[in-house]
Amino acid sequence: MSTPDGPTDLVGMRERNLALVLAEIDRSQPVTRARLAELTGLTKTTVSARVAALTALGLVSAEDPVRAGRGRPGAPVSVASGPIAGLGLEINVGYLSACVLDLTRRVRIRRSVPRAGAGAGADPHRDVAALGRLAHAVTGQARRAGLTLVGTTVAVPGVLHGGAVNAPNLGWDALPAAELFAEALPPQPLPVTVDNEANLAALGELWFGAGAGLGDYVYVSGETGIGAGIVVAGALFRGTHGAAGELGHVVVAPGGPACRCGGRGCLEQVAGLDAVLRAADVPDTAPAGPDARDCADVLGAGELVRRLEAKDRRALAAAKRAGEGLGIALVAVTNLFDPAALVLGGLPARMAPWLTPHITAALEAGGGRLRGRTPTIWRSELTDGAVLGAAGEVVARVLAAPGAVA
Amino acid sequence: MSTPDGPTDLVGMRERNLALVLAEIDRSQPVTRARLAELTGLTKTTVSARVAALTALGLVSAEDPVRAGRGRPGAPVSVASGPIAGLGLEINVGYLSACVLDLTRRVRIRRSVPRAGAGAGADPHRDVAALGRLAHAVTGQARRAGLTLVGTTVAVPGVLHGGAVNAPNLGWDALPAAELFAEALPPQPLPVTVDNEANLAALGELWFGAGAGLGDYVYVSGETGIGAGIVVAGALFRGTHGAAGELGHVVVAPGGPACRCGGRGCLEQVAGLDAVLRAADVPDTAPAGPDARDCADVLGAGELVRRLEAKDRRALAAAKRAGEGLGIALVAVTNLFDPAALVLGGLPARMAPWLTPHITAALEAGGGRLRGRTPTIWRSELTDGAVLGAAGEVVARVLAAPGAVA
Repeated sequence: MSTPDGPTDLVGMRERNLALVLAEIDRSQPVTRARLAELTGLTKTTVSARVAALTALGLVSAEDPVRAGRGRPGAPVSVASGPIAGLGLEINVGYLSACVLDLTRRVRIRRSVPRAGAGAGADPHRDVAALGRLAHAVTGQARRAGLTLVGTTVAVPGVLHGGAVNAPNLGWDALPAAELFAEALPPQPLPVTVDNEANLAALGELWFGAGAGLGDYVYVSGETGIGAGIVVAGALFRGTHGAAGELGHVVVAPGGPACRCGGRGCLEQVAGLDAVLRAADVPDTAPAGPDARDCADVLGAGELVRRLEAKDRRALAAAKRAGEGLGIALVAVTNLFDPAALVLGGLPARMAPWLTPHITAALEAGGGRLRGRTPTIWRSELTDGAVLGAAGEVVARVLAAPGAVA
Repeated sequence: MSTPDGPTDLVGMRERNLALVLAEIDRSQPVTRARLAELTGLTKTTVSARVAALTALGLVSAEDPVRAGRGRPGAPVSVASGPIAGLGLEINVGYLSACVLDLTRRVRIRRSVPRAGAGAGADPHRDVAALGRLAHAVTGQARRAGLTLVGTTVAVPGVLHGGAVNAPNLGWDALPAAELFAEALPPQPLPVTVDNEANLAALGELWFGAGAGLGDYVYVSGETGIGAGIVVAGALFRGTHGAAGELGHVVVAPGGPACRCGGRGCLEQVAGLDAVLRAADVPDTAPAGPDARDCADVLGAGELVRRLEAKDRRALAAAKRAGEGLGIALVAVTNLFDPAALVLGGLPARMAPWLTPHITAALEAGGGRLRGRTPTIWRSELTDGAVLGAAGEVVARVLAAPGAVA
């Protein structure tokens, strides 16, 4: 390995060591500088200098400043619970959500508002402006709590390609979302990142739910749309162009209802919220209030679940149809990916008691006999995995490149 | 990194260095010992000792022994084209194949025989015995050509789970194939490995076909059954239990014909050879002769293609149905994996001119508009990718652990 020895490279090495020391603190905290030197293979002098730099950036703090004295070399250090924090945003058909995490991944602020004009004609610029207002409000609230937001990741229910987002359920067609968000959001040192909501919800499950214990899993998410986040060896499987996991457009009813993607009989047209509400004859109720914690309750899902609990005949028939469709799509997932587990999130999690028997039956028939086992089906306990995953993704970016927050 | 310093570890280090030097020779050949020392970071003394050991094992040879004198340190060395060689075997519904590769991956022997009792009642032990006879015959032929076979990989059209193979199209149910093969095959220093034929054909395409230039791809294979080998970042994606890529059991006709897997409407029941021949009214003809090079010709596939070329109405209708089924399954593959390319092998490659229009139409409709692109469709030019991949897998095992051939 030959590297140039000029000053540029020294800067690069300092930045790499900064990230190395911070990652080790995150893994082993609370940890002394002496132990960090052993764990990283760096000299004690280098470790002390990098810990001082991380402390100056507000990323690291001495564990017990009262007893040991702030910055005393023998005192163990930890990742700081402030001021540096990350902002996660989510836009979905019926609501906008925000979540602020500090670097210890503790939730400091959560907020959710109904999406203006949901159901009316699509206006992407209204969405961008509304997301900007939410971000400004949350940034003010964070400032008053002594937090500095250094980056934002936005979860969208769409397919990303080449910097643009197609989200037919929002009425977005090749929207240059990252650029538009960057203009509408408060300025921050890290660039705005946009990602698919199922991907971020899958990471939310990994970091804040049961994901870390499940092995490789496919997280099924969705309200109006349906997506999947595929976790292999503790990381997202994103595909060649970042568009892997588009479960909603797996065909489960060949020749069936036309889909907004241009195909026919897509899973989304059978098991998406709109399709299920229509089949169950449940009206789209008003979105939940501005501080609703449970975003899955919007757009009639709550009423649907109440009718299922009351054994309403049409609701049960709609759930059966959705469960059979999900079964066909998850047989494809299982045959192709051979995951250890399938995680139900979003609407499928809320409907799990009525969907799971159909999914299990499909898995046991469709190749289950050949492979001698079927994946575990796990119901997510998170109701806001996507926005948690979005904020967690900002924290991961800070930990990977701490110098960028300066 | 703390490691024990005992003699065991010295042996481990010697073995690691042996593999490191051999891998670098394979990558950079012809290459001098001095250059190998630079490339590996090992001392020249260590490189010379390891090259001598590799030469003694028959794995490496001096490039130009006449001019430079065998073993002279300045002479470049290369991977030896003998005597060490690997045996690939394939068993499929209509035939058994064998292929011998030397360590330069040159094909030294190919052989193919019809499967005894194909179509009659299943008898796994007859299959094992027939494969043993083929392996003994090829081993004798290799010995007469001055080659020593050090390991065998067997391609099977089935799902592996926990050391057993389920191959309904062969009539194998939880067959402990690796153990049975190990008894029936000539003794060799490396253990017998069994793998799914689609996985090995996907590797065959990577090493001997167009695979290396395609990016991530999904290789679609099959005669009676249909499988897929998924190549991500130049390696097989195997799934949690090694059973990824079971494309044949993706449901493409919900409620359709019963499948041997226990499901209904699996792709195999629409686009597998048996199903297509039945729909096209082509009889299962006699398998090809004992030295057939083109194994895809067995069981009526040749006659089917002739009828398609003659625009036979029933054959065209059968191809349309198969193409539409493949289209639905490959829309699922594309939505879930987002590959750069889809490679058609086996029967789908032979039928490609009649299948591709339906596959392309399905891809363009099913989510193609959302993602702004569809994967490239590539027709494999290999007619025996699985057995080539099987033999190549033995070569890869030798290169990864050269000490094991001693």
